[in-house]
Amino acid sequence: MRLAELAEATGVPVPTIKYYLREGLLPAGLAQTRTRSAYGPAHVQRLRLVRSLREVGHLPVAEVAAVLAAVDDPEVPLLELLGTTQIAVAGRAEPAAAGHPLADDLLAELDWQVHPDSPLRPALERVLRALVQQGWPVDAQALQPWTDGAQAIAAAEVDVVLGQAAQGRDAAATVVALGTVLYGQLIAQLRLLAQESVSVSRLSSPIEHPGPR
Amino acid sequence: MRLAELAEATGVPVPTIKYYLREGLLPAGLAQTRTRSAYGPAHVQRLRLVRSLREVGHLPVAEVAAVLAAVDDPEVPLLELLGTTQIAVAGRAEPAAAGHPLADDLLAELDWQVHPDSPLRPALERVLRALVQQGWPVDAQALQPWTDGAQAIAAAEVDVVLGQAAQGRDAAATVVALGTVLYGQLIAQLRLLAQESVSVSRLSSPIEHPGPR
Repeated sequence: MRLAELAEATGVPVPTIKYYLREGLLPAGLAQTRTRSAYGPAHVQRLRLVRSLREVGHLPVAEVAAVLAAVDDPEVPLLELLGTTQIAVAGRAEPAAAGHPLADDLLAELDWQVHPDSPLRPALERVLRALVQQGWPVDAQALQPWTDGAQAIAAAEVDVVLGQAAQGRDAAATVVALGTVLYGQLIAQLRLLAQESVSVSRLSSPIEHPGPR
Repeated sequence: MRLAELAEATGVPVPTIKYYLREGLLPAGLAQTRTRSAYGPAHVQRLRLVRSLREVGHLPVAEVAAVLAAVDDPEVPLLELLGTTQIAVAGRAEPAAAGHPLADDLLAELDWQVHPDSPLRPALERVLRALVQQGWPVDAQALQPWTDGAQAIAAAEVDVVLGQAAQGRDAAATVVALGTVLYGQLIAQLRLLAQESVSVSRLSSPIEHPGPR
């Protein structure tokens, strides 16, 4: 199909597709003439993947490129792909000179197996420090609703990936990358909706959203 | 204290403070001379709040301004402040012409009480549509680990707010705004860390993170 048809098939505007092509997020089509290329089903699939990572996951273009490179490389083990995707989602927190004592204490209390040098520790530290600054407790007991929820969700997600991994690395690779991004957005949105639902049922009063509905 | 001292007390660089002052996120200090102002403890507190919303919550400046305006206005009820903060966190999803049937179906199945015109419905729809595009199920049974987790977390959060609300609207306002933002980041980070911990315990293999640790 031609570029305009690819745009129609995926709902992604032509200028956006051209941008993705320039940035290497989408492989070039098969050149037909000097100015026209042909695109196939693989382009449709890749474009949907890019679109989900960008528009739903809000990942920066550079992070999408890093995730796609890991997805495409059959030599990259799934756990390394998961690590790459996690960093893309979590953001690259600069390790602080002061280390990450709050994160270390919490993870030790929880007995979670996390690499001592994991870049996710500084990312967690940043959040915990902001909570402490407000005088809010950050020990395992105080945070139990969040840690229990996170653990139950993560266990379900890892099970999905392990189920897929049985069908081969390449099938599982997309699941790992996209699942990490999409289910992260899912839990974020569901939490806000549940806040509204719980508030309404406890207070018998509807939530107000500003601006035009 | 002077501007440089405010910067030192909060760890926020002077140019960033000046930017927040220009954008109205931080009230001006008390003018001492034509070029010098004095800042007090209220500035320190507000600056920490702005910093958390920006640096930890990754909210755009315009959304921080909208949240702060609602925090500062004693006429704004807490549930409306919650709504304002939720939109700031969820992002303003354009309502699609096609509506949000996937979100409507899921919320009906869950029997969650969410306003039919809530701007959170289009935001959820976007995520569900991306999941469906991958052929992944989005009914309540398939999504139970995520919906259960979201509900447990939201219930804990609403309880914290209701506890604070007993101490007056203004004390609770900061809790609502900052809690919605910070605990959202907390669950996002904990989920990724739990993925690592669960993966390690199921696969007896460490997770790999790319690049310099």
